[in-house]
Amino acid sequence: MKIEDLRNTAWRFNERLRYLSRRGEILEEEYEAVVREIIKRVREEGDKAVIEYTHRFDGVELTPETMEVPYEELERSYEELELDVKQALEVAHERIRRFHERQLEQSYMVEEEGIILGMRVIPLDRVGVYVPGGKASYPSTVLMNTVPAVVAGVREVVMVSPKPNRYTLAAAFLAGVTRVFSIGGAQAVAALAFGTETIPKVDKIVGPGNIYVALAKKLLYGTVGIDMVAGPSEVLVISDGSVDPRWVAADLLSQAEHDELAGAFLVTPEEEFAHEVVKELENLLTDFPRKEIAKKSLERFGTVFLVEDLKQACEVANYIAPEHLEILTKEPFALLPYIRKAGAVFLGPYSTEPLGDYVLGPNHTLPTGGTARFSSPLGVYDFVRRSSVIYVSQEGFQRVADATESIAMAEGLHAHFLAVRVRREDL
Amino acid sequence: MKIEDLRNTAWRFNERLRYLSRRGEILEEEYEAVVREIIKRVREEGDKAVIEYTHRFDGVELTPETMEVPYEELERSYEELELDVKQALEVAHERIRRFHERQLEQSYMVEEEGIILGMRVIPLDRVGVYVPGGKASYPSTVLMNTVPAVVAGVREVVMVSPKPNRYTLAAAFLAGVTRVFSIGGAQAVAALAFGTETIPKVDKIVGPGNIYVALAKKLLYGTVGIDMVAGPSEVLVISDGSVDPRWVAADLLSQAEHDELAGAFLVTPEEEFAHEVVKELENLLTDFPRKEIAKKSLERFGTVFLVEDLKQACEVANYIAPEHLEILTKEPFALLPYIRKAGAVFLGPYSTEPLGDYVLGPNHTLPTGGTARFSSPLGVYDFVRRSSVIYVSQEGFQRVADATESIAMAEGLHAHFLAVRVRREDL
Repeated sequence: MKIEDLRNTAWRFNERLRYLSRRGEILEEEYEAVVREIIKRVREEGDKAVIEYTHRFDGVELTPETMEVPYEELERSYEELELDVKQALEVAHERIRRFHERQLEQSYMVEEEGIILGMRVIPLDRVGVYVPGGKASYPSTVLMNTVPAVVAGVREVVMVSPKPNRYTLAAAFLAGVTRVFSIGGAQAVAALAFGTETIPKVDKIVGPGNIYVALAKKLLYGTVGIDMVAGPSEVLVISDGSVDPRWVAADLLSQAEHDELAGAFLVTPEEEFAHEVVKELENLLTDFPRKEIAKKSLERFGTVFLVEDLKQACEVANYIAPEHLEILTKEPFALLPYIRKAGAVFLGPYSTEPLGDYVLGPNHTLPTGGTARFSSPLGVYDFVRRSSVIYVSQEGFQRVADATESIAMAEGLHAHFLAVRVRREDL
Repeated sequence: MKIEDLRNTAWRFNERLRYLSRRGEILEEEYEAVVREIIKRVREEGDKAVIEYTHRFDGVELTPETMEVPYEELERSYEELELDVKQALEVAHERIRRFHERQLEQSYMVEEEGIILGMRVIPLDRVGVYVPGGKASYPSTVLMNTVPAVVAGVREVVMVSPKPNRYTLAAAFLAGVTRVFSIGGAQAVAALAFGTETIPKVDKIVGPGNIYVALAKKLLYGTVGIDMVAGPSEVLVISDGSVDPRWVAADLLSQAEHDELAGAFLVTPEEEFAHEVVKELENLLTDFPRKEIAKKSLERFGTVFLVEDLKQACEVANYIAPEHLEILTKEPFALLPYIRKAGAVFLGPYSTEPLGDYVLGPNHTLPTGGTARFSSPLGVYDFVRRSSVIYVSQEGFQRVADATESIAMAEGLHAHFLAVRVRREDL
């Protein structure tokens, strides 16, 4: 955990801060040729290519018949859950559903002087959810990516996950996933984008993944919809030193344990407190099971930024535009108006980020690596398409015909003019 | 204009239909190396690279001082407009503004059992609008891309356009564009994405462009937000033969005149009517000023699909998911429930698409090439970011602590467990 002093007017030029704010830019070119080849082969060869890549990358032998996980296995995984996990997932599911129901949008139509204008809001037909598998177990990812789709009214949610474990399958059953295929990587993304003999083609692909998955989504964007280009995860904690430094240390660690590229940042005006947090972090790491991962991420990216005051702390937060922002201060709401860029803001000492990862209700799929500048948390709005509706009566037509002809001529688009003129001639 | 018979059960396998539904997939790889090089050089060399590429591609000599169009020139272009064009643009501006104001979203917060959850809706800080220039003149593009940003509350709208003409500049003044730079191509997109000594870095880039512009946007997605990956434009007309075939022909032509890749399709159960439309189209083309462009697009993509009935016509429309859909039938609203995929639907004989391009109010930036499967018209929602807000009191914490710990252990994320546990220990 490095300590950087930003208590000066040139803080925006601090090298470490600039490096961290660009952390989200992935080294795409390295992986691009491989991913392009995978996409090309899946497009041309369908199942055959998917099966071959699954053998090569995941070490699993599949056939078109064994790609899909039987639905009964989802149900059984759910029924056989330990009671506490089952109850916890049910609490989470219910809270996530309730929060997302507020995001439902209504279609509307208005009529004025012979012209009807409207906007229809229609759920997507079929979406794909990517869930990391193998050693990882992410039932929360299943809930967070599926529930908004189900709330939006999507009828088919197809999940792909390489070697999904029983928690993942149980969550799929609970959340309302329609079908599960045990495939992963760029080949799974390509299969969902184009469809194969066995895998259905979807309209949009959501969910986190490694660099291959992220790059495949980006390259296929346009052929299929995607949620976002997700990079490594990060938390930024603002504190005035009014909370137990151990709490802050645990929160930073809960980000650092995700993966070696995760970012954990503390911004505080209290120098002594900063040192206490660093010490607590070392204590917590002593016999921490995921020590290797956490240490690497903390060494590479972990940083305490010392600032003049809490107002500057907010400016640093806006500069980084973190995925998660915790405001652990005496009066957290007083800072909220100064925060313009963050995926999710956690206010107050008890609002530790893991509560939001699992059970509170707001989505944990959030814009990472500074993309909170222009992106939003995953939501119901990501699973609908809007469509404009226009009706122009003869009366309405006469009202707007002149203006349309004038602009058509100014743009030199003669047939645009003509389409109006042939109708006028017949009136 | 080719005529294809889909009056059979295997219509989904019609070669022409399948070819047209994939028309939107652009041959990216051909252009990718060039665009990557442009992006790299603009990133590293800033203004110098932008000036060099502008000289090479647009034949214009710029300096950092002459890149920006003085604001007075925008104002003067507006004041000097022909009266009819000025009034037309004002009508359009007012209608577009009114329609988009309905899309404004509210932030919200709800409180339940010691937990406050909310969603803030915050305008983007600064956006870039790309407007094609040179021989083209698109004041309507300026209005359609700028007004929703201004309605959303974006404070800075930076427009780029190579050699913008007076109509484009006048529309920029009217719409509320903050600054205009006379640059274009992939170099303009890269300049907006990274910022240069002269061009400000933006949060999101919107607006149409050629293949270089589209590809630069796609490659830079993640570094900067983008609206969509736009392909060539298309219209699909459904008709029962109850309208003047000349009207249909003019509407098809108004799409075909856009560019050589534009698509114009008619779907009808009336064979005789189909032939009449084709004949009228030939008549209209006789001394049509944009004949060369229109003929090329009609020869390559123009198609009449003969169907059994209007219900099948809707299925064909959903298959293609067109940018513009015109329903020119006796009872157009009766078909609306069967239409699931279209950027904008124009109902009734007077609802010709050019009215929507210019003055009606709904946005003319629409998903093309089948992307209406998952994308929406450009709107105010594209110019805001959402951010979750979470406050958990001590009481609320005790309510969700158990469930969080259970899921954390099921996922094997020890520090997620720890962040909850250290707080419980201190209670």
